Amino acid sequence: MPQQMSQSTDRYPINPQLLAFSYARDSAAQSGCSVLDAAFERYFNLIFPDFVGGTGLSNIWSEPKPFTVSVKVKNGECDGFPDEGSNESYNLSVSAGQAVLKAESVWGALRGLESFSQLVYQDDYNLYFVNKTEIEDFPRFQFRGLLLDTSRHYLPMPAILKTLDAMAYSKFNVFHWHIVDDPSFPYQSRNYPDLSSKGAFHPMTHIYTQSDVKRVIYHARLRGIRVVPEFDSPGHTQSWGKGQPDLLTSCYKGKVPSGTFGPVNPTLSSTYQFLNGLFKEVTSVFPDSYLHLGGDEVDFTCWRSNPNVQAFMAKMGFGSDYTKLESYYMENIVNITAALNKTSIVWQDVFDYRERIPMDTVLEIWKGVPADYRAELGRITLAGYRVLLSAPWYINHISYGQDWRNAYTVQPQNFSGTEQQKKLVIGGEVCMWGEYVDATNLTPRLWPRASAAAERLWSDEEKTSSVDKAFPRLEDFRCTLIRRGIQAEPLFVGHCKHEYSGL
Amino acid sequence: MPQQMSQSTDRYPINPQLLAFSYARDSAAQSGCSVLDAAFERYFNLIFPDFVGGTGLSNIWSEPKPFTVSVKVKNGECDGFPDEGSNESYNLSVSAGQAVLKAESVWGALRGLESFSQLVYQDDYNLYFVNKTEIEDFPRFQFRGLLLDTSRHYLPMPAILKTLDAMAYSKFNVFHWHIVDDPSFPYQSRNYPDLSSKGAFHPMTHIYTQSDVKRVIYHARLRGIRVVPEFDSPGHTQSWGKGQPDLLTSCYKGKVPSGTFGPVNPTLSSTYQFLNGLFKEVTSVFPDSYLHLGGDEVDFTCWRSNPNVQAFMAKMGFGSDYTKLESYYMENIVNITAALNKTSIVWQDVFDYRERIPMDTVLEIWKGVPADYRAELGRITLAGYRVLLSAPWYINHISYGQDWRNAYTVQPQNFSGTEQQKKLVIGGEVCMWGEYVDATNLTPRLWPRASAAAERLWSDEEKTSSVDKAFPRLEDFRCTLIRRGIQAEPLFVGHCKHEYSGL
Repeated sequence: MPQQMSQSTDRYPINPQLLAFSYARDSAAQSGCSVLDAAFERYFNLIFPDFVGGTGLSNIWSEPKPFTVSVKVKNGECDGFPDEGSNESYNLSVSAGQAVLKAESVWGALRGLESFSQLVYQDDYNLYFVNKTEIEDFPRFQFRGLLLDTSRHYLPMPAILKTLDAMAYSKFNVFHWHIVDDPSFPYQSRNYPDLSSKGAFHPMTHIYTQSDVKRVIYHARLRGIRVVPEFDSPGHTQSWGKGQPDLLTSCYKGKVPSGTFGPVNPTLSSTYQFLNGLFKEVTSVFPDSYLHLGGDEVDFTCWRSNPNVQAFMAKMGFGSDYTKLESYYMENIVNITAALNKTSIVWQDVFDYRERIPMDTVLEIWKGVPADYRAELGRITLAGYRVLLSAPWYINHISYGQDWRNAYTVQPQNFSGTEQQKKLVIGGEVCMWGEYVDATNLTPRLWPRASAAAERLWSDEEKTSSVDKAFPRLEDFRCTLIRRGIQAEPLFVGHCKHEYSGL
Repeated sequence: MPQQMSQSTDRYPINPQLLAFSYARDSAAQSGCSVLDAAFERYFNLIFPDFVGGTGLSNIWSEPKPFTVSVKVKNGECDGFPDEGSNESYNLSVSAGQAVLKAESVWGALRGLESFSQLVYQDDYNLYFVNKTEIEDFPRFQFRGLLLDTSRHYLPMPAILKTLDAMAYSKFNVFHWHIVDDPSFPYQSRNYPDLSSKGAFHPMTHIYTQSDVKRVIYHARLRGIRVVPEFDSPGHTQSWGKGQPDLLTSCYKGKVPSGTFGPVNPTLSSTYQFLNGLFKEVTSVFPDSYLHLGGDEVDFTCWRSNPNVQAFMAKMGFGSDYTKLESYYMENIVNITAALNKTSIVWQDVFDYRERIPMDTVLEIWKGVPADYRAELGRITLAGYRVLLSAPWYINHISYGQDWRNAYTVQPQNFSGTEQQKKLVIGGEVCMWGEYVDATNLTPRLWPRASAAAERLWSDEEKTSSVDKAFPRLEDFRCTLIRRGIQAEPLFVGHCKHEYSGL
């Protein structure tokens, strides 16, 4: 739902053969603009999914009038990457024979093209129409993310690329790539190839090569989507240890090593040398200005058992407070990231341990479901940190029935705090953790449930306060998704004109 | 898990080019047997999913020895349909260079071929092997069904056919086709074409033509699967009313019709004439000896409101007991079915109303989850009726995590009753109701969760009492399903050698 929209019942026919996307004369971007040239081609196919070239069909059109979608952007930059400062606002005016789309940047133009594509519909005779429409639109939140977990299950490239396609349809703009974790390390590092050759589920078939990663970033860029990778540490790193000797803490049973390993060993300088090397590579591969460092769920049991860690604790004066050791570690890696000119995102646990972390660090809130995440929002914004909300959007959690309603009714700024604090909520993320999800069930679990959260992140909260009014809109949208080849599951009893049949 | 199986670590290579299925000399069925000829071709492709013809690969085989799967059936009937009396037992003996499969009937041979296909595996070099194995096998229950609901959502033909494929992999043998219900009537009747032209979601695209139905029955027969259609009445019939005037009861508000309709009108002779005509057609289209008549969840409100129904109640001496009217209706249609030489299956509600129904009627138990279905089993078998258990297998109900474990640990015969009563449990059904399910999410919701119930219905309960021992077996099997193109979801963290990539 756009911020402002007025529509009339006047409708204009669109003949696929006579629809043209064009750059306005006074647009700063012109033909040759990579992002928009590709978008024009893409949206033509999305609007007319069954169009086949040729002129054979033209005589079924009573009015063979041309229809022009004219795009004007103020900022002609076409080869950069979307980032936190990107302006996604646009105006769209649809009248007889034309749609005029104006945006500050190509990223806003992409959002406008998406909206335009959703305005076009088919009647019972399969003719295309669009109604007279005026839209002024901009996102409520700057950061509208979706997390995929490619460690608990490997997601083949087509699953990731198709998710990026569907994200653009719901105006998501950040792909949070939880690329590695305990079970596997599929990222194929240039500098540390053993990480994947020993830590992936399979060293050849279950990895993301540098070329795969580039393809994801390229595919995302063309859709105005940032790619923020997460290299979660010091916990959640079992798979790292397989290819990087001495990285993990050796756990002890009594006075002897037990043969098992715990979190990253924060006491060794080799640890930070390695992480500096890895992050240097990662920040050169991923162009986004943000890097997610994880920092969640660190179990201190293994650290406590290790005599060398104990000695380090004593030397540092940490006493028996292992949260200080965790803080020490996170401070070090946040500083490494800052030195690489990247902003860190970390899970809220890092705030709970009260590390001295740069004030521009973003805290991601994942605890406190069903309702206590409000307290977390208040607590962390009170300290002046920017926050991302993901707690109510752990969409891997499923229950029987219309659980999209829970995702829809979230109010990210409804917590006790000042206006200034509310502004520190920069957005939210839908998280699809991978314990029970791989390419077989990813898409129907994500869509259209994630779209409910997407509307919450984009649209005006007052204008979208009714979940019952959202229901038919989301039902229509899920049929649109199916028409576009996205295997989106039904909300309830009913049907789409064109059912999914891509079995 | 077969009833009896012994395996050794001796393994024999299988060269795809030199694997041959053949009829034993003393087999009653020989080349030209439709069911087995088709199965030989099918199982070759299932065993070697990446095999491409030609002789180019043969030199990678160190031992170019032939391997023969020799099949002997005692009963040479190949052109009939599987039915309640079908014998599915088989013996399989795998030794050097050959597998000998013996079965009473072609249906048992199909089960044996499935087992053989699951014994063959690939090593790390993608060479195929099978271990020395002896299997004596037969199903624990005669009736192992799976229900699909094609009324709440229309399932395109490929979704149904693919489900039949996957059913065979788990040795299900009954497809319970809940073909119509309140929301839509997709069955295109020869004699009553208005039922679908007015009652389907769409009269052309959302129907099952006679040819579609034939194709389903044909596809199922080749896999040893019965097709039992359900025409549920007198409730769940809103869609019927659109194409069959005066079939449904007109509901009254005070003294005037409210414009809404209730269950089938049981007071009119035209009702029974129509049902006789419809069931006559249906029983000629569907060869199975069983017909499911529904009979569940009848709401009496509308009947109570209608003055003609009230008058009929008085005339019949039913007083104000509407269960008697429901009984009267069900008795009539069970008798219609009996006159057509078909056995009726009905939902347990029909027993609850104590209709006088033939003793060969099968009652399907769907109430009493989580545990009280045991009481239902005891109660209905005590009255001497045969029962089907589906209550704990409403697999459309999902919850987060490994909910297949609940389906697996069901004990269908663990209720208070005599040995004779236990024998009246003829099997069970996995039900995939369609409120929230269509072709987009059907397959990952069904598989491998339904396979857990399938093992409970086929295998010896004592030998499969450990759900933890079943876990790795089911994990392997789900990778097999993926390898066969079935989009089966993961049970937990991990990977398959060949991931699903059919996006």
